[in-house]
Amino acid sequence: MALIVQKFGGSSVADAESIKRVAKRIVETRRGGNDVVVVVSAMGDTTDELLDLAAQCTPIPAPRELDMLLSAGERISMALLAMTIKSMGVEALSFTGSQAGMLTTPEHGSAKIVDVTPGRVREALDEGAVAIVAGFQGFSRVSRDITTLGRGGSDTTAVALAAALNAEVCEIYTDVDGVFTSDPRVVPLAHKIDYITSEEMLELAAAGAKVLHLRAVEYARRHGVVLHVRSSFVNDEGTIVYDPAQGHPKGADQVEEPIITGIAFEKSEAKVTVGGVPDVPGKAAQIFEVIAKTNANIDMIVQNVSGAATSRTDISFTVLIADGPRVVEALEATREELGFESLQYDDQIAKVAVVGAGMRNASGVSAKLFRALYEAGINIEMISTSEIRVSVVTRADLMEQAVQALHTAFGLDGDAEAMVYAGTGR
Amino acid sequence: MALIVQKFGGSSVADAESIKRVAKRIVETRRGGNDVVVVVSAMGDTTDELLDLAAQCTPIPAPRELDMLLSAGERISMALLAMTIKSMGVEALSFTGSQAGMLTTPEHGSAKIVDVTPGRVREALDEGAVAIVAGFQGFSRVSRDITTLGRGGSDTTAVALAAALNAEVCEIYTDVDGVFTSDPRVVPLAHKIDYITSEEMLELAAAGAKVLHLRAVEYARRHGVVLHVRSSFVNDEGTIVYDPAQGHPKGADQVEEPIITGIAFEKSEAKVTVGGVPDVPGKAAQIFEVIAKTNANIDMIVQNVSGAATSRTDISFTVLIADGPRVVEALEATREELGFESLQYDDQIAKVAVVGAGMRNASGVSAKLFRALYEAGINIEMISTSEIRVSVVTRADLMEQAVQALHTAFGLDGDAEAMVYAGTGR
Repeated sequence: MALIVQKFGGSSVADAESIKRVAKRIVETRRGGNDVVVVVSAMGDTTDELLDLAAQCTPIPAPRELDMLLSAGERISMALLAMTIKSMGVEALSFTGSQAGMLTTPEHGSAKIVDVTPGRVREALDEGAVAIVAGFQGFSRVSRDITTLGRGGSDTTAVALAAALNAEVCEIYTDVDGVFTSDPRVVPLAHKIDYITSEEMLELAAAGAKVLHLRAVEYARRHGVVLHVRSSFVNDEGTIVYDPAQGHPKGADQVEEPIITGIAFEKSEAKVTVGGVPDVPGKAAQIFEVIAKTNANIDMIVQNVSGAATSRTDISFTVLIADGPRVVEALEATREELGFESLQYDDQIAKVAVVGAGMRNASGVSAKLFRALYEAGINIEMISTSEIRVSVVTRADLMEQAVQALHTAFGLDGDAEAMVYAGTGR
Repeated sequence: MALIVQKFGGSSVADAESIKRVAKRIVETRRGGNDVVVVVSAMGDTTDELLDLAAQCTPIPAPRELDMLLSAGERISMALLAMTIKSMGVEALSFTGSQAGMLTTPEHGSAKIVDVTPGRVREALDEGAVAIVAGFQGFSRVSRDITTLGRGGSDTTAVALAAALNAEVCEIYTDVDGVFTSDPRVVPLAHKIDYITSEEMLELAAAGAKVLHLRAVEYARRHGVVLHVRSSFVNDEGTIVYDPAQGHPKGADQVEEPIITGIAFEKSEAKVTVGGVPDVPGKAAQIFEVIAKTNANIDMIVQNVSGAATSRTDISFTVLIADGPRVVEALEATREELGFESLQYDDQIAKVAVVGAGMRNASGVSAKLFRALYEAGINIEMISTSEIRVSVVTRADLMEQAVQALHTAFGLDGDAEAMVYAGTGR
């Protein structure tokens, strides 16, 4: 008997009909002879509605109370799901984050999981019940308060429970069929990936693929949890995210993996260029110390040495658009001290990343990438690489073209156009 | 520094504007130098909406899951209220029933309070914060599950906390100005009662007065909690419900209390008449044993000895309309065995009760009551009395007339018509 963790997002439980559909799938899994733990998000727009209510009460809600408020969302969906499953003749019990033993740090709105003690979940399974656990929420032993995990929280709850319960697989149900070589809405010939390593998935998620949250993928990789990203609308197999160190899920005689697995992209970053920085040791450090104090998330960094004659250099980096103004303000405030000449802020950029574990052993990936973009007439403004990823910054309005060109150049185009569902998912 | 418990019902926190209004009042009380504990119900129609969602998922929701679901309601209102108070510069912390130490029996939907251990509430007060506690909900140590207290639950939570914290007063905020001599919608000249004993309040609540829940009044009386029923819309004093054994709140030179304090009424009961019951010892006991097995709530009981010649008697009793059909069914099923001749069920009755502690020392209350109803042309079908109450059953369509006649006869009419607010309250 296998233990399976199933995670359903808000759009999968948006109303009573969806809840019944999800309940049927859970009941089938249970009747198929598996132990089932379900992690569920708040219904559809509940979280937004609660945030709106809070905003009507006060512009700056106290974080502790905001967590208390938001945690009501999963409480509603999990109770409805549990009673629906029970009405179908299968025992089911719902558990809040704290009842399920999701122990976190005390930071409200962005708590980190410190331990998972799913004693009650285990008991429920031992009694033959399906355990329904609230995603996104936890409990801090330090503050004795309810916490929420922040973005990607429900995926992370599911993965953490799968790890703690040593589940065979953690199924992430979504409104797409799995992980695609690229977003089918941008690349019509994108095709579903059957198997992907957790390392590749991590790079894709970090580079903007929305189907899985980076944080959940990281947790899964660290704890060796096998993920199965699949559609809550159809019964087909989705994408298996696995750790190659533990072997390919299909066994040894797998077909050879392609060099490139997928292409991710995003427009959520802006480029900041600090121009005419005195080219003396320690100056870059000084600049990034100023930025660090703003708590902004810096991504790519490029330094152009603009010729020894001038003794000046330009430093460019990308930063989340949400953090951009704060960074610019902090830099302007210390302009005198830092001694730079100009400051440019540009939010019309896009980041495109080519990811593939095969890249490690294959030369020529960068060459092929440069040529494809050159032939498409697309200028590369910044570039950064990891062992299994090459990311480039282009103009925002050329992003889709760049993605399509690279998808074709790296041989990822499928035989038919991919299905695109209405929703965009969690 | 006094400790005050304030309870606000769902209509007082129906939307962001109401929440701000309530928050202001709480802040004023706190700034007035008091420790404040607030008990809050779910916002407006939240509970009904959650029940509706449950009904869409399954016709018979599992009680455990229904409690989990409904408890989300107060979680939302208390978090919003706490963040609103904080935004006004006063420290506030919200607590769920279990965090506030509301320990109950494990019966879902109708749990009883077994202990109150408000350690965290006390800590919050000690830190200078207002404590916001979810009404209606608790926690069972036996089942380790969330419970709800059922009807009148939020009032009871407030009273139980006031008792456990030894509060000076438990203020119950509602949409009327206090407890009235009768319902102003039926008796326009009804006037607000300034002081009422808990015993009288108990009889009024039991006889249909909706302003306070019987259960909360009972708890208050048993634990010596002074209640203050007042309007959440105006700042005037409402009605103080006190225990005369602890002295009148106004001191010794209080004005003499009237004989009759108020007149309550309700149409929620039906009359069942078991006709032609063999007049042998133990027969009534047998009949009520059958009824007891249905768990129905029996109120008034009258036995008419219909003449010794026939050796038969009629037994009438009133029962909640909701329980009526169950009782009739049970009696019909045992007709042979019980040996009665006829069974009549009549849901067109009303109960009118005259309540007053002064009645104890005053003769002639019943006489005055009979005369007033006789002069109004109203027939009395049943009568029952306690030390401080006389209740009669009349035709339902004559109820308002009966109430008005008695209100005048017992000198309760005020000088001016009472204000009637739109809402009917919790």
